[in-house]
Amino acid sequence: MSNKEQKKIMILGGDGFCGWPTSLHLSNLGHDVVIVDNLSRRNIDNELECQSLTPIQPIGTRLKVWKDVSGQSIKFYNINIANDYELLLDLVKTEQPDVIVHFAEQRSAPYSMKSAKHKRYTVDNNLNATNNVLSAIVDSGLDVHLVHLGTMGVYGYGTAGMKIPEGYLDIEVPTETGERIQQQILYPANPGSIYHMTKTQDQLFFHFYNKNDGIRITDLHQGIVWGTNTRETMLDERLINRFDYDGDYGTVLNRFLMQAAIGYPLTVHGTGGQMRAFIHIQDTVRCIQLAIENPPSKGDRVMIFNQMTETHKVRDLAELVARLTGTEIAYVHNPRKEAAENELHAKHELFLERGLNPTTLAEGVLLEVTDVAKRYAHRADISKIPATSTWTKEQQVGVPDRNAGYVKADSDRG
Amino acid sequence: MSNKEQKKIMILGGDGFCGWPTSLHLSNLGHDVVIVDNLSRRNIDNELECQSLTPIQPIGTRLKVWKDVSGQSIKFYNINIANDYELLLDLVKTEQPDVIVHFAEQRSAPYSMKSAKHKRYTVDNNLNATNNVLSAIVDSGLDVHLVHLGTMGVYGYGTAGMKIPEGYLDIEVPTETGERIQQQILYPANPGSIYHMTKTQDQLFFHFYNKNDGIRITDLHQGIVWGTNTRETMLDERLINRFDYDGDYGTVLNRFLMQAAIGYPLTVHGTGGQMRAFIHIQDTVRCIQLAIENPPSKGDRVMIFNQMTETHKVRDLAELVARLTGTEIAYVHNPRKEAAENELHAKHELFLERGLNPTTLAEGVLLEVTDVAKRYAHRADISKIPATSTWTKEQQVGVPDRNAGYVKADSDRG
Ligand SMILES: NC(=O)c1ccc[n+]([C@@H]2O[C@H](COP(=O)([O-])OP(=O)(O)OC[C@H]3O[C@@H](n4cnc5c(N)ncnc54)[C@H](O)[C@@H]3O)[C@@H](O)[C@H]2O)c1
Ligand SMILES: NC(=O)c1ccc[n+]([C@@H]2O[C@H](COP(=O)([O-])OP(=O)(O)OC[C@H]3O[C@@H](n4cnc5c(N)ncnc54)[C@H](O)[C@@H]3O)[C@@H](O)[C@H]2O)c1
Repeated sequence: MSNKEQKKIMILGGDGFCGWPTSLHLSNLGHDVVIVDNLSRRNIDNELECQSLTPIQPIGTRLKVWKDVSGQSIKFYNINIANDYELLLDLVKTEQPDVIVHFAEQRSAPYSMKSAKHKRYTVDNNLNATNNVLSAIVDSGLDVHLVHLGTMGVYGYGTAGMKIPEGYLDIEVPTETGERIQQQILYPANPGSIYHMTKTQDQLFFHFYNKNDGIRITDLHQGIVWGTNTRETMLDERLINRFDYDGDYGTVLNRFLMQAAIGYPLTVHGTGGQMRAFIHIQDTVRCIQLAIENPPSKGDRVMIFNQMTETHKVRDLAELVARLTGTEIAYVHNPRKEAAENELHAKHELFLERGLNPTTLAEGVLLEVTDVAKRYAHRADISKIPATSTWTKEQQVGVPDRNAGYVKADSDRG
Repeated sequence: MSNKEQKKIMILGGDGFCGWPTSLHLSNLGHDVVIVDNLSRRNIDNELECQSLTPIQPIGTRLKVWKDVSGQSIKFYNINIANDYELLLDLVKTEQPDVIVHFAEQRSAPYSMKSAKHKRYTVDNNLNATNNVLSAIVDSGLDVHLVHLGTMGVYGYGTAGMKIPEGYLDIEVPTETGERIQQQILYPANPGSIYHMTKTQDQLFFHFYNKNDGIRITDLHQGIVWGTNTRETMLDERLINRFDYDGDYGTVLNRFLMQAAIGYPLTVHGTGGQMRAFIHIQDTVRCIQLAIENPPSKGDRVMIFNQMTETHKVRDLAELVARLTGTEIAYVHNPRKEAAENELHAKHELFLERGLNPTTLAEGVLLEVTDVAKRYAHRADISKIPATSTWTKEQQVGVPDRNAGYVKADSDRG
């Protein structure tokens, strides 16, 4: 393992789907990792009466096993970074991290749209979390590099004929006198849910604190993550990563792979004409490493990378998985408010230039995920599969009953 | 008074500097006005150990006097709209307003920069307030027109040679194939303080809720308000409006006029080369009326007006006030992080087209304000005049001692 420069790295949200394998990956590289998490994601499992398909262990067990397996210690602090500012600040002052990686936000779009309560929680949690982290860095007086997980969703979809750049857009403004002013601006935001909206608001926090306080920030606009295990989480079953398959937290490709594993028709929303960006979890952890190894310099503006490796239409993914596994496709009503069809072409050179060697959607890797899902199929609650959270009240009529699609499609199957 | 269409209007922040005269103005026009305010601004007076130069009465007294003077009743609810969501929602459902005017945010840039606590309060209060109002409108199922007070500060300063449009910017994006894509985007945000930042984040709330839920929204990018009384607040001394003169809440022109009234040298920050937009409080209340009378239609995007009538450089205002009143100018260290000099040219045709007849910076109107300040000069605490809140810790050295400027300049005076 490369161990050129050992860093103290604080991982906010280090118990989550991306945060846990990232913590292990960085610990394995020899960095000194500290996890901060309020375990809110596990509490949301309770609220939704649903759990990870894979049997994730309590954080204490995870860390003990990691110590046994790797010899490395990871410290853990249960702190709500959106609320417990003084605890967060004290921790930053005591631990003196070189880098803070910030995953600690409510990250499900459907969850953020379920009700006023969920909208308000997402806004309150995500915006206060990000502001607190930035404020704590300023308050500590330390030169911490902040790496934040954003989303490709900040760009919105639908600028036909144009490749989405990495964060900043070159524009020309025609003036009244006929001149043209050239500028580079933050790509105009067009979020598709309350969750995505908070990420576009995060960008304005970063812009301001970078300008006013000179904080060094890397914002990673991540695509939809698929896969479940990384090299480190495979070292012991008790290190296993989360696998969300439910209608709120399950993301599209992983849902198809899990549905294929249990013979549940692949739930395509609407026409499946939505084009989305994807990245494998193994590449996520590698990208975070690269972001840490390639920090902005003091005085640089916010550095933005598109953290994704490929784009696909949802129906093409369904067809691919159907072909590989023999599962059927069920076209269901789209609970979201979005264009039925869109194109999404985005640049993602910055990570490639820094050495990323992408894991693409090859048959083998896809089937690996289906194998994991099959192993834990007995833990699945199929009533949790349909997406029931709608973007507006009016759409609620069109949402399928729990199981309805399953039963129907089941009887259809040859 | 024109009384074409009586509306039920809920004024959030109706006890404040802009909200109070607006409530009276709309009530006087025959509208049914309901005020919601948690009186946090009065509590901040306590915190800062400073009070309005004018003797503002408790809200209960204000409303009783208004009833006596005008015969009109205004209801008042003490609700924290950032916290008490259920109370707010219930109120919207019971009162069924046609229009909600949203003034209820922490609005001082220096206050928002005082410390981590103040940054965090401003973010938490302003963002949750705006999200709660929007969510309550969706939840109520009512077709409420929301009128929000934003700021000219969302635009940032310094796009040389270009007139700032009203909200939306026409751009051209040069594509790789040499084509040009034409688009209209929300003007790229460049806020200068935590307070201004929250207003740029508010814009993203509006964009999203308008797109997703079809809420009709007017966002008013207001300039710096000057003056203190309006026709209605002058009807009885107990209806008098706030007059902030302190380093945190006092805004530039009113501060100069108050300083002139007590013979305190006019405190110009830096070179005074900052160009700002201005509007008189009488025009503020009239603009809100016009915004209510010219609502967007269902399906329209967020309507944005620049609510300002003129732009001036700070030093030119100081020179004008100095000339009118014989007061000296004291150039002091700038506690903000901003360009020493900037130009600001902004369109503001939309209100003029809808009938606004601006009160400009004429001698008479300026001296009216100084007269009010003179009347209450005995209430002033001059130790509160210097601006002591700095944008970064490093700047704290450059900030003048309380009174220092006063004493020095005093002895300088001929
Ligand atoms: N999973 C994806 O497909 C995906 C795609 C794009 C971007 N992202 C972003 O990556 C980040 C991590 O996503 P994930 O899939 O790992 O989500 P996750 O929900 O599994 O992990 C987030 C973790 O943060 C913690 N957390 C949330 N709020 C907190 C708070 N206030 N204080 C302390 N801890 C808190 C949760 O308990 C959880 O462990 C998110 O910001 C998400 O928006 C994820
Ligand atoms: N005064 C100016 O020069 C100026 C200029 C541009 C824009 N604005 C905007 O106009 C609006 C009103 O400004 P103002 O000068 O009247 O400010 P103000 O502070 O005098 O009034 C704001 C009122 O809102 C109330 N409030 C704040 N948070 C609340 C909450 N959570 N729940 C209920 N009530 C709450 C306060 O108690 C106060 O009475 C603000 O949004 C401000 O940003 C003002």
